[in-house]
Amino acid sequence: MASDRTYGDIPGFPTGSAFKTRDELTESRVHRPNQGGIWGGKDGAESIVVSGGYVDDEDYGTEIVYTGQGGNDPRTKRQIADQKLTHGNLGLARSQIDGNPVRVVRGAGGDPQYSPKVGLRYDGLFRVVDHWRATGKDGFKIWRYRLVALESADPPPAGADGTDGEPAARTQATIQRLVRSTAVANGVKRLHGYQCQICGIQLATPAGPYAEAAHIRALGRPHNGRDVASNVLCLCPNDHLLFDTGAIYVDPNGVVRQVGTAADLGKLRLVAGHSVDWAQLAYHRNHYKP
Amino acid sequence: MASDRTYGDIPGFPTGSAFKTRDELTESRVHRPNQGGIWGGKDGAESIVVSGGYVDDEDYGTEIVYTGQGGNDPRTKRQIADQKLTHGNLGLARSQIDGNPVRVVRGAGGDPQYSPKVGLRYDGLFRVVDHWRATGKDGFKIWRYRLVALESADPPPAGADGTDGEPAARTQATIQRLVRSTAVANGVKRLHGYQCQICGIQLATPAGPYAEAAHIRALGRPHNGRDVASNVLCLCPNDHLLFDTGAIYVDPNGVVRQVGTAADLGKLRLVAGHSVDWAQLAYHRNHYKP
Repeated sequence: MASDRTYGDIPGFPTGSAFKTRDELTESRVHRPNQGGIWGGKDGAESIVVSGGYVDDEDYGTEIVYTGQGGNDPRTKRQIADQKLTHGNLGLARSQIDGNPVRVVRGAGGDPQYSPKVGLRYDGLFRVVDHWRATGKDGFKIWRYRLVALESADPPPAGADGTDGEPAARTQATIQRLVRSTAVANGVKRLHGYQCQICGIQLATPAGPYAEAAHIRALGRPHNGRDVASNVLCLCPNDHLLFDTGAIYVDPNGVVRQVGTAADLGKLRLVAGHSVDWAQLAYHRNHYKP
Repeated sequence: MASDRTYGDIPGFPTGSAFKTRDELTESRVHRPNQGGIWGGKDGAESIVVSGGYVDDEDYGTEIVYTGQGGNDPRTKRQIADQKLTHGNLGLARSQIDGNPVRVVRGAGGDPQYSPKVGLRYDGLFRVVDHWRATGKDGFKIWRYRLVALESADPPPAGADGTDGEPAARTQATIQRLVRSTAVANGVKRLHGYQCQICGIQLATPAGPYAEAAHIRALGRPHNGRDVASNVLCLCPNDHLLFDTGAIYVDPNGVVRQVGTAADLGKLRLVAGHSVDWAQLAYHRNHYKP
């Protein structure tokens, strides 16, 4: 599942960058394909172009309801067949699950209130917050995505870069930190094949397997844990909640235990390539074990 | 588990309200006890006073690292015994798990940068985002809580009140909507005894049982589902994720099924007092079932 995807801003092309043509846009690598609206595959989507190509698109500025690709007649822009959850459509769903940001480019032809009058414009990073199937205006099945501009979404926690930083302004640095943080999390999840290190479950969704990255020593004040792979566990949401609330901890022998009982929930599952920092597990344990 | 707790702002006492004495504060019901720093019990905590009574408190303005109650010598303010996760300490942990806001009052004697010079001041609503046990500066076990001011935390989604409202400013209305929304969610969870309506699990944490309120028809554009009990399921985090990503749905006979397979995951668990809106389950199903 290795990938040469580039998530986040492309250096040299800040939000607001204008492009005269799709060729110019392709050359910048802000959005690589010359025609398609989505650049992505089953491992995730990097970027989209919103330019009025789909009759079901809705643009609210910092929020976009976007239509997946396929099934439309490029000449009339009407849907003439059902869309499938494959290729770029699957990529956008995967980016939601992985929490990766998507570059949004608006082109002339989109909603006049938010789109450039001519050419194309890079409008910054958005998060995919929802995806679902619907019957479009033309009566065919389409995939839809709700995207929210990153500055409207939650910023990374203070100290996500290991400092005890001030609440960060939305700068290039913030974005890079966010993307880096997502990369650490997703790297650990891939190493574990999205299996929970505590119960072994792998949650299967139509967009692929899902797991969460749990920081052993929490980020932010006053713990100031580091956002590095050795401070991250790959957990299912249930065990993530139990770990974060101190209901379970890992003992010095690597056995997962329930606070307040002698229950032995089995060994923490380890894989080659992901070394867990036992000092951080001790830090966590000391915060919860009676 | 019924309770007469009042979460959220107290009408007539907006953020910034000043009180000359603890008696005056008690009378306002912004913080009821005349002496204690936390007003709460095992069902949750409504309010705290930060006034320098505990040597381990840290104040950063919109973020507070707060010390639980007990174990200190009120005269010297030093810790002389371990604190327990009971009474108000348990209440703050419970408010974290339930997502209920906590009223924060600062008093003279707290961090001079953020505290009033005399008397007490209501500083608005905060969320408990973390709690853990630590060894305090005086060598005894203390419980600690990280609280973040609500205007710094995520606002309720647009349309959380059933309208397709604009991104809301931080007004009294917003706060009331947030508190109401939390009340709906927690009401449904209590009716189900925090058991997942799909798998039946009840996650046990040191702060009590945990479950999540899943909206069947999503809030916000373009679904505009309503924030009412009949549009909410009580789910464990794992099944919440699977339901929201369309990995599972409820068929017209009330049987939970996995998309793409014939797998029968059993009947949706129902309880008296919580009527589920089958039209919304159909809405959800039609968005995911092939």
